[in-house]
Amino acid sequence: MTTTSDRPAGPGEHTPARTPLPAPTDETATVDVDALSQHLLGRWADLRAAARATAGEPEFWRIEGQSVAEHRARVLDQVKALVPRKQVWRAFPERLGGADDPGGNLAGFEELVAADPSLQIKAGVQWGLFASAILHLGNPDQQDRLLPGAMDVSVPGAFAMTETGHGSDVASIATTATYDPDTEEFVLHTPFRGAWKDYLGNAAVHATAAVVFAQLVTRGVNHGVHAFYVPIRDADGTPTDTGAFPFLPGIGGEDDGQKGGLNGVDNGRLHFDQVRVPRADLLARYGAVAPDGTYSSPIDSPGRRFFTMLGSLVQGRVSLDGAAVTASKLGLAIAVRYGNERRQFTGASSTEEVTILDYGTHQHRLVPRIAEAYASHFAHDRLLDLFHSVFSGEEDTPEQREDLETTAAALKATSTRFALDTLQETREACGGAGFLTENRITSLHADMDVYATFEGDNTVLLQLVAKRLLTDYGKSFKGITPGQMARVVVERATDAALHRTPLKRAAQAISDAGDPRRAAGQLRDADTQRALLTDRVETMVEEVALALRPAQKADPETAAHLFNTHQVELIETAKAHADLLRWEAFTKALELVEDAGTRQVLTWVRDLFGLSLLERNLAWYLVNGRMSAQRARTVTSYHQRVVARLRPHAQDLVDAWGYGPEHLRAKIATGAEKERQDEARAHYRALRASGDEPVSEKSLRAKMGSRLTPTPSEDASA
Amino acid sequence: MTTTSDRPAGPGEHTPARTPLPAPTDETATVDVDALSQHLLGRWADLRAAARATAGEPEFWRIEGQSVAEHRARVLDQVKALVPRKQVWRAFPERLGGADDPGGNLAGFEELVAADPSLQIKAGVQWGLFASAILHLGNPDQQDRLLPGAMDVSVPGAFAMTETGHGSDVASIATTATYDPDTEEFVLHTPFRGAWKDYLGNAAVHATAAVVFAQLVTRGVNHGVHAFYVPIRDADGTPTDTGAFPFLPGIGGEDDGQKGGLNGVDNGRLHFDQVRVPRADLLARYGAVAPDGTYSSPIDSPGRRFFTMLGSLVQGRVSLDGAAVTASKLGLAIAVRYGNERRQFTGASSTEEVTILDYGTHQHRLVPRIAEAYASHFAHDRLLDLFHSVFSGEEDTPEQREDLETTAAALKATSTRFALDTLQETREACGGAGFLTENRITSLHADMDVYATFEGDNTVLLQLVAKRLLTDYGKSFKGITPGQMARVVVERATDAALHRTPLKRAAQAISDAGDPRRAAGQLRDADTQRALLTDRVETMVEEVALALRPAQKADPETAAHLFNTHQVELIETAKAHADLLRWEAFTKALELVEDAGTRQVLTWVRDLFGLSLLERNLAWYLVNGRMSAQRARTVTSYHQRVVARLRPHAQDLVDAWGYGPEHLRAKIATGAEKERQDEARAHYRALRASGDEPVSEKSLRAKMGSRLTPTPSEDASA
Repeated sequence: MTTTSDRPAGPGEHTPARTPLPAPTDETATVDVDALSQHLLGRWADLRAAARATAGEPEFWRIEGQSVAEHRARVLDQVKALVPRKQVWRAFPERLGGADDPGGNLAGFEELVAADPSLQIKAGVQWGLFASAILHLGNPDQQDRLLPGAMDVSVPGAFAMTETGHGSDVASIATTATYDPDTEEFVLHTPFRGAWKDYLGNAAVHATAAVVFAQLVTRGVNHGVHAFYVPIRDADGTPTDTGAFPFLPGIGGEDDGQKGGLNGVDNGRLHFDQVRVPRADLLARYGAVAPDGTYSSPIDSPGRRFFTMLGSLVQGRVSLDGAAVTASKLGLAIAVRYGNERRQFTGASSTEEVTILDYGTHQHRLVPRIAEAYASHFAHDRLLDLFHSVFSGEEDTPEQREDLETTAAALKATSTRFALDTLQETREACGGAGFLTENRITSLHADMDVYATFEGDNTVLLQLVAKRLLTDYGKSFKGITPGQMARVVVERATDAALHRTPLKRAAQAISDAGDPRRAAGQLRDADTQRALLTDRVETMVEEVALALRPAQKADPETAAHLFNTHQVELIETAKAHADLLRWEAFTKALELVEDAGTRQVLTWVRDLFGLSLLERNLAWYLVNGRMSAQRARTVTSYHQRVVARLRPHAQDLVDAWGYGPEHLRAKIATGAEKERQDEARAHYRALRASGDEPVSEKSLRAKMGSRLTPTPSEDASA
Repeated sequence: MTTTSDRPAGPGEHTPARTPLPAPTDETATVDVDALSQHLLGRWADLRAAARATAGEPEFWRIEGQSVAEHRARVLDQVKALVPRKQVWRAFPERLGGADDPGGNLAGFEELVAADPSLQIKAGVQWGLFASAILHLGNPDQQDRLLPGAMDVSVPGAFAMTETGHGSDVASIATTATYDPDTEEFVLHTPFRGAWKDYLGNAAVHATAAVVFAQLVTRGVNHGVHAFYVPIRDADGTPTDTGAFPFLPGIGGEDDGQKGGLNGVDNGRLHFDQVRVPRADLLARYGAVAPDGTYSSPIDSPGRRFFTMLGSLVQGRVSLDGAAVTASKLGLAIAVRYGNERRQFTGASSTEEVTILDYGTHQHRLVPRIAEAYASHFAHDRLLDLFHSVFSGEEDTPEQREDLETTAAALKATSTRFALDTLQETREACGGAGFLTENRITSLHADMDVYATFEGDNTVLLQLVAKRLLTDYGKSFKGITPGQMARVVVERATDAALHRTPLKRAAQAISDAGDPRRAAGQLRDADTQRALLTDRVETMVEEVALALRPAQKADPETAAHLFNTHQVELIETAKAHADLLRWEAFTKALELVEDAGTRQVLTWVRDLFGLSLLERNLAWYLVNGRMSAQRARTVTSYHQRVVARLRPHAQDLVDAWGYGPEHLRAKIATGAEKERQDEARAHYRALRASGDEPVSEKSLRAKMGSRLTPTPSEDASA
């Protein structure tokens, strides 16, 4: 996390990092847009800025209206054009031309979404999945041998994990790789149609190799899912009419065809008929097979080994979180600019039409989403920190890895949902103009759609998060009887770090003042917000843990049934956890904002996010006796007040995200609407001044009183 | 409303229409799919069935992946191919080949969405807007002269109302039509860029004429918005490279280009530079100009005249409501079929994978939406009835017209929102497969997107609804002082008719039993559901009316501000009203279901819809003291129980909607997934039986206890 200040810390200064400057009043606080923009670039500011500049170059823009084939070809060219810039190599080892800089790599990578989400995902397939699998699952020899072609895209590659029949349940994939000691080869085989690899980026046309996941079988034992490097197409062959090189013997495939979006990525299917893979091409970091077929692994437990292998691929989720936040910002920046220029319906004065962002409903649609985008931004920054600390080796412990996986799952599921809802809302907020491709939002929505289900289906990810919360909870009660547990009041020190639920019970019941003004004051208090949000997560975890407790001693069927009936609550619990993570990250980030006006406005933004969460879950707070009806009403009315207070800052807040016209690429966000509105108003002013303005029948009738039809002599033109 | 029974009514039978058959138990109740399907075809069953069959013919299907130009050309051909079937002419006068059957026309028309939403909208532009404007705004002579070309599509037409600068605020459009008595012509003129006509279907390429809305100015008086029939392209000229005939002199335009969906419709812009329109081509039913420029109208009030003209075009909203419900059904039918075949993760038994619709979360995503689709279906049926009664002249009163407009606005805004959310949810519920174009849902979503903002932006429509509710409320208190009013307890007879809010105060407070089982029993009771839903609408109307009361005596600015701060509540009130309409329509419809099992299941479906509404608004019920925390918990748990109870009926319930593979056109809804799953399971069964199945390392380790690596002698293959 960067700060924009080099002022030395004075005595006694700790948290907040520096003595707050005098708070500006509501009227004078303004955002220092440039400083905030710089601040938001975060820890890898230069890399992020450079990548954002790249995304703004026309060479990398999406050309709307291209056919699927044209779009695919263009994106492949763009991917290749990224190579010389080296940003995409930063995660790889220095010895191979990289920078051993996983965090800096992702910070830049996720900016590509502004150029074209297809470019982001195609790049993600090549470097984030295909090459990363070699990096993380291969041994150093394999890295040296296989990474260069993957890095420089001389070998476009597919990441062949998912099968038609198995998406989220990777452990159950059916492709087998059976070791044959006679030839020292694995025999890769697809046993039935459901085991075809599917939805693989690069597989339909461009990939000449793939990292294929299969059940490793040797000496009659299935050692579980392992990854194999497999050439799939003959780069010396004659391309087919799609431009694809012919498949190598035993390999077949199919084009997934057109998709709801992301059509610059050529997703496809692959299947294998007794394809022989040299022993050396099992990516052997976590599992190797000796010439005689003896299996060995540095990780004894097959379960832990599986999760370690998969865990090494968490960066996909991390980067999707960042990309989803960026896409949300793009939509909001477009809609806020338009909302600030578009006028519709006359207001109090009967001549001037009202700017639509001045309408209560319009503010209500957009302003809370600005706040949520900020919260998601700061949470993502913390996630990147965590990711970097683990993957750079700075703090690579099992606990950190687990936290990383849980946090990535929680935030990816939350921000991709948020992006879709926000793009839909912003599209509608721009009316018919929002539906035109020239205004960008519909294409972004179409592209982001699949972010909700790929790299981990959001529902499945939230279940993982919930299970982790339950496990953590369970650990804290080891050896305690259920009876004791039910009586225990959880008391833990507040851990405001992003990636752990602060399990401090809000024991000090928030006093429920009858006076609405005092109640609003309390809601503005960060401690109150934190207590309410934390309490909800803790209570939900506790409740579902208690409800699921009988499963431990039940037969499998009863246990599964019990789990199933509480699945919805588990998901809700995970969402509450993700919300808290975002709120904490935002609150933490406020400390580092130097400019007092900016900090004041951002504090309101944080308050609005907190209030939005409370309002969204008001029923829970009421049902569980955490809020009185009176307090709940205050939440709603105070929420509305903060929205109105932030309305004048809306443009600054979206401008600070730092996306220019070269990123937004929406005609309605170029000032065109303001020009039209100004021209229209100038026309009417001139018409009024000219005296030639027709009088309206309505006002004429008002003048004439009750007489119904004007006689020719009353005709205004006479 | 049709019923499937011809059993004569016995003595004493009124409402419900017949003595209920003995209720089947929970275990035995099943849906008679064929009978329900027939029942759901509704009042114009034959017309609807025929139109649905048309929509299932390959000639009318959308071909995915076509370019915008190809898609536009195909849809124009399809529109022309509809002409000989005459279904699309039913709304027009018998003397011109129609059937004077507005309801039957719409019932068939809205089925076209299953073929391709672009076809529905292109047909809607031609017959529902362009030709309908001639029908409803023209006099009989104009109908005779202009309708035939519009009806047989020899004159493709645009409906030129919306301007770039004015969407929802039609009264403020800036195009002028100034009468010139010297030539007996109107001079049609676009004064500035914002006054260009925009988003007009047919305008980019195909239209050779348009109905153009403009401010009618004669003798220096602006008589407000009127419609003019204007040829725009020279059908004898040489087409441009887009295939469009050249514009006539003084007329220009622009292609709106690619859109987020509906690309089979060629939307475009038009502008007019002093274009001369013969006096006879002012569509003169509601306003005419004599040769000397004298204006006359059968409606004195310019305001009422304007709303009468616009009101005649309400059928667009009615049909969008129907189309949105149909699109929701298509998405649900695809996702439910897939959810019933797809398996993922092993459950209690460790070999059989679980059908995903058996997961609590998956049921929670889809089953309540099935219920809401049913509610929307029945509400739409009632709306069609109301529409037909007004437009056929059966009961064409100002009150019925107002009810029709309010109901159409409420339901269109609600069902288009529901369709978008449902298509998004069903897309995600189908995972990666849902994102493939071959599985249809993404295309439907893209097409339906604009339904939320065209033919009346949903937010604006809901405000209209709210204002109507306030007006109705105000009428009932004429002459009462605010002080008296505040004390008044509203007591009105229940009016269960669809299109009026039943304003009966749920005075008899629902007793809040402590016993959850009794509470659930109460919630199952239709009267309880109705009382809770009605009470909410009434209370919200009352509260917002009281809050807005000061506006009556305030200066315009204060009044506008007051209104603005309550805009969000107004919208919420309108939504609550729409929800109640749907619930009432569903409840009414239950009475007509003959088969006892079907009625039982549908009653659960209705209960689920009611419970969903209660759960969605739980915070309101709690804050307003209408429910205790205990009762609120019961709502949630009972909701979950009903979802689980309906799960076995999910397939029947979507099948009864009557859309076959020729309508769904989604590979995953053809049984392909079941085939794959069966093949996979057969493979594993055979493998197990063969004795060749590799043993898993995991189970091997379990057998070996703590020893870490198998020695060769323990190798299972040895």
